[in-house]
Amino acid sequence: MTKNRSGNYFEDFRVGMTLSHATPRTLTEGDRSLHIGLTGSRTVLCTAETNARQLGFEHRPLEDMLVFNMAFGKTVPDISLNAVANLGYAEVRFVSHVYPCDTLAVESEVIGLKENSNRKSGVVYVRSTTRNQHGHEVLSWVRWVMVHKRDHGANCGEAVVPATQPVVPPEHLRRNDYAARVREITAMTGFDDLWDDYAIGERIDHPGAMTINDSDHSIATRLYQNTARAHFDGHAMAASGGRRLVYGGHVISVCRALAYDGLENALSILAINGGSHVNPTHAGDTIACATTVLDKVDLGQDHVGGLRLRMIGVKNAGSASIVFPEPGEGRAAHPSNVVLDLDYTIAVPRRQR
Amino acid sequence: MTKNRSGNYFEDFRVGMTLSHATPRTLTEGDRSLHIGLTGSRTVLCTAETNARQLGFEHRPLEDMLVFNMAFGKTVPDISLNAVANLGYAEVRFVSHVYPCDTLAVESEVIGLKENSNRKSGVVYVRSTTRNQHGHEVLSWVRWVMVHKRDHGANCGEAVVPATQPVVPPEHLRRNDYAARVREITAMTGFDDLWDDYAIGERIDHPGAMTINDSDHSIATRLYQNTARAHFDGHAMAASGGRRLVYGGHVISVCRALAYDGLENALSILAINGGSHVNPTHAGDTIACATTVLDKVDLGQDHVGGLRLRMIGVKNAGSASIVFPEPGEGRAAHPSNVVLDLDYTIAVPRRQR
Amino acid sequence: MTKNRSGNYFEDFRVGMTLSHATPRTLTEGDRSLHIGLTGSRTVLCTAETNARQLGFEHRPLEDMLVFNMAFGKTVPDISLNAVANLGYAEVRFVSHVYPCDTLAVESEVIGLKENSNRKSGVVYVRSTTRNQHGHEVLSWVRWVMVHKRDHGANCGEAVVPATQPVVPPEHLRRNDYAARVREITAMTGFDDLWDDYAIGERIDHPGAMTINDSDHSIATRLYQNTARAHFDGHAMAASGGRRLVYGGHVISVCRALAYDGLENALSILAINGGSHVNPTHAGDTIACATTVLDKVDLGQDHVGGLRLRMIGVKNAGSASIVFPEPGEGRAAHPSNVVLDLDYTIAVPRRQR
Repeated sequence: MTKNRSGNYFEDFRVGMTLSHATPRTLTEGDRSLHIGLTGSRTVLCTAETNARQLGFEHRPLEDMLVFNMAFGKTVPDISLNAVANLGYAEVRFVSHVYPCDTLAVESEVIGLKENSNRKSGVVYVRSTTRNQHGHEVLSWVRWVMVHKRDHGANCGEAVVPATQPVVPPEHLRRNDYAARVREITAMTGFDDLWDDYAIGERIDHPGAMTINDSDHSIATRLYQNTARAHFDGHAMAASGGRRLVYGGHVISVCRALAYDGLENALSILAINGGSHVNPTHAGDTIACATTVLDKVDLGQDHVGGLRLRMIGVKNAGSASIVFPEPGEGRAAHPSNVVLDLDYTIAVPRRQR
Repeated sequence: MTKNRSGNYFEDFRVGMTLSHATPRTLTEGDRSLHIGLTGSRTVLCTAETNARQLGFEHRPLEDMLVFNMAFGKTVPDISLNAVANLGYAEVRFVSHVYPCDTLAVESEVIGLKENSNRKSGVVYVRSTTRNQHGHEVLSWVRWVMVHKRDHGANCGEAVVPATQPVVPPEHLRRNDYAARVREITAMTGFDDLWDDYAIGERIDHPGAMTINDSDHSIATRLYQNTARAHFDGHAMAASGGRRLVYGGHVISVCRALAYDGLENALSILAINGGSHVNPTHAGDTIACATTVLDKVDLGQDHVGGLRLRMIGVKNAGSASIVFPEPGEGRAAHPSNVVLDLDYTIAVPRRQR
Repeated sequence: MTKNRSGNYFEDFRVGMTLSHATPRTLTEGDRSLHIGLTGSRTVLCTAETNARQLGFEHRPLEDMLVFNMAFGKTVPDISLNAVANLGYAEVRFVSHVYPCDTLAVESEVIGLKENSNRKSGVVYVRSTTRNQHGHEVLSWVRWVMVHKRDHGANCGEAVVPATQPVVPPEHLRRNDYAARVREITAMTGFDDLWDDYAIGERIDHPGAMTINDSDHSIATRLYQNTARAHFDGHAMAASGGRRLVYGGHVISVCRALAYDGLENALSILAINGGSHVNPTHAGDTIACATTVLDKVDLGQDHVGGLRLRMIGVKNAGSASIVFPEPGEGRAAHPSNVVLDLDYTIAVPRRQR
């Protein structure tokens, strides 16, 4: 009859298992205000009701990273409560916009399992799917996470490593019915750079930098009802010689907000193709970031195109100091002050065609 | 004509006095978002609009501890601005749910006064009653607080110590018209434990722990418009060799949020039978808690029963380390790392009967 | 094709230029909750929907300083990203109340320019005007700010220093159609002091004090989408031997909230006649403030009058220690712990006439 919950350990997962995460969550304007207060987000589509209407929306949607982190938080108690580390993301698809008062429910399927050779832990691969109150998919992703074994001697069977796509293909990217007037966005932001004005290989050093305080990341992570202990239990972290870690999703949110400058006319995130938290972030660290354009994606739409970007975030250094390693060089190519290496695709209005 | 407000001192109170606290307060979804961000609250009834509807509610109510702290905060400028310490609570009754856009007004009656033998301070006993915009009582409590005298020589009359009930009796506990489908709650939370599955004497060690940061408790306490100086004036606290204290109601909120794990199907708090802040909490302390089941209460309802719980919160130690003294042993039985000893009653769906 | 944004430098401004700031912003109840959580604001008109209705309003407006800071934040990326210091405010007029769901757009006109004799920087004078979604002016102000030159050799032409009014004249102060029942405010706040009860020269020592934490001011400033680097980039500030500065508008908000006690029946701010941030505030500083009544303003209304106040805020000292220099003695007359000297006008109900 014990109710001492300990979460799932590596040997509790089976390929094909489906986990329905507790509980659905209604998002509100209050969550948006906190998201802006915690990250400084300034996206044009989400900042004003009047902006959204001019861009052809009935209402302003919620910020993409708020939605991602809310949905991600739901999966933590079942997937990553006993995690050693969150290893990576792939195939993150922002399928539909989410609006205040929408209720999101998240489900995960275990799609891979691979015990580590030391038999103390293993990697769990899940595909998580988020649906709104109408049952429509709004967001899905694959992530893999290293999870402790409860019993090091447990027999865990054959490794199953799922194939993931290195880039979300164009046909899987959301197409909203943006009106032609989406180009009026430049009148709102004061910057003229549209899809046509970005070149593959171009680099943008975002001018801002943000020191993350203890309450900033704690409030954000609690807002997401994310219960991973490493973010909250300072006593246990100190006992093992460490400090509380900043939740990686908050680091992405902060970098995304800093990346407003130079990408002012971005409409929304379409996909995260891949990403990793290269080194940990702690309270007191100051985050800066830079972006390069990896690709320009034709979405088959007159008014909107996709930009595939690589964004690297560093701690306690300026954006100009960031070095972009060759794609595929992996974590080892990064110096120890790199905290984020993210490959993602955004929608930007096109000038003409 | 002076407007230098100094609040009430012990000799300003009279038994039978009624204080109408300034001013009523409208609660909103923004307050809920902050409550979740500051405590990590995950109660099933309040987390999603869809959950509330499935459980037979028209809308999701606001979190119980948010409502309690909002109402409590209103009483501080009149009752406890010049308090030495908040000594205890009794007969805290959560009479009706409160919803976003409700406006709460709080009134207190002085029901007891007892000067201390040193004649420098005294204990003020008040019964506070909270009503919504329709004049319906939603929450009431008794608390007693030690308050400084302005003039140590003032003559304060006979002691009047009110009798309080050690436990809110079952007939005073709220009965909502929960539908039979309230048992569907297990499908939302993923845990099967209902009222029938808890045994008197059973202990639950809640697995989480939460480090409280300076801004966490400051933002919470300001949100409640609670003006007690000990929480805000770091300069004065340092001058007297101390540090700002974390508001006790925030500690209860945090413990209640941690206690979700193991009590996932709790619907809401019906009563706080008694409680004390055994030792102070400061920013930087990490809070953990454990619960024992003191009693199972038949509410005379088919679908819902009451669980009377004792929750002990500690700082900078794990929940497994908590020792439950015999009831009635009092504060002295607790080691110095105990910060909260709370006796409260919750509603939980029943399996069958 | 570079998108490395560096903001405007002194030589980029021309007298007569108009800057339309990105982007409009919709304000919500979520923003109000955060404002209360970050400042402890308790204004009677904004705290409860029922209060607002009793005072003759259809809904409760948003807090004045929340509106001011939201609008001010919009101007930062264009005006003060490369600022050395914000030198002063004048002619700040709160023309209309702002309500949740209103969308504010801000425009600034450059009304003066004066290069410094060292030719490294200059003072930019702007008049900023905020309109709601109906195009109605809700708030305007003049401010002057010292801004770096990009190129010290650049030729910047003749100095133009605009004349500003030392006090917003009575005919420019907002007149709301407050009903006679506005005097019922005293039943809500519990204090009887109306316009008639304040005397010119009277001093009020506000009893509270508030320690500002790192996250408090960071969250506030991000909420306003204010991007000034000195508030956020702890790494760069440390590299130049300093620390992050608390945004001055947050200091005003905190002082205004502390000034509730003694001015409980204030309806709203009508104008800020002038003000300066005399010395910097850093996280960890405890703020206290005191007020003197400079003038009593007849608004030509039966039920409401204006009070012109001078509020001085200090750090790490009590309100009783504050010395009010003679008006016009300037910054030099203040000791180094003074952080704010503000001259502003509020509306307060009148008893009779």
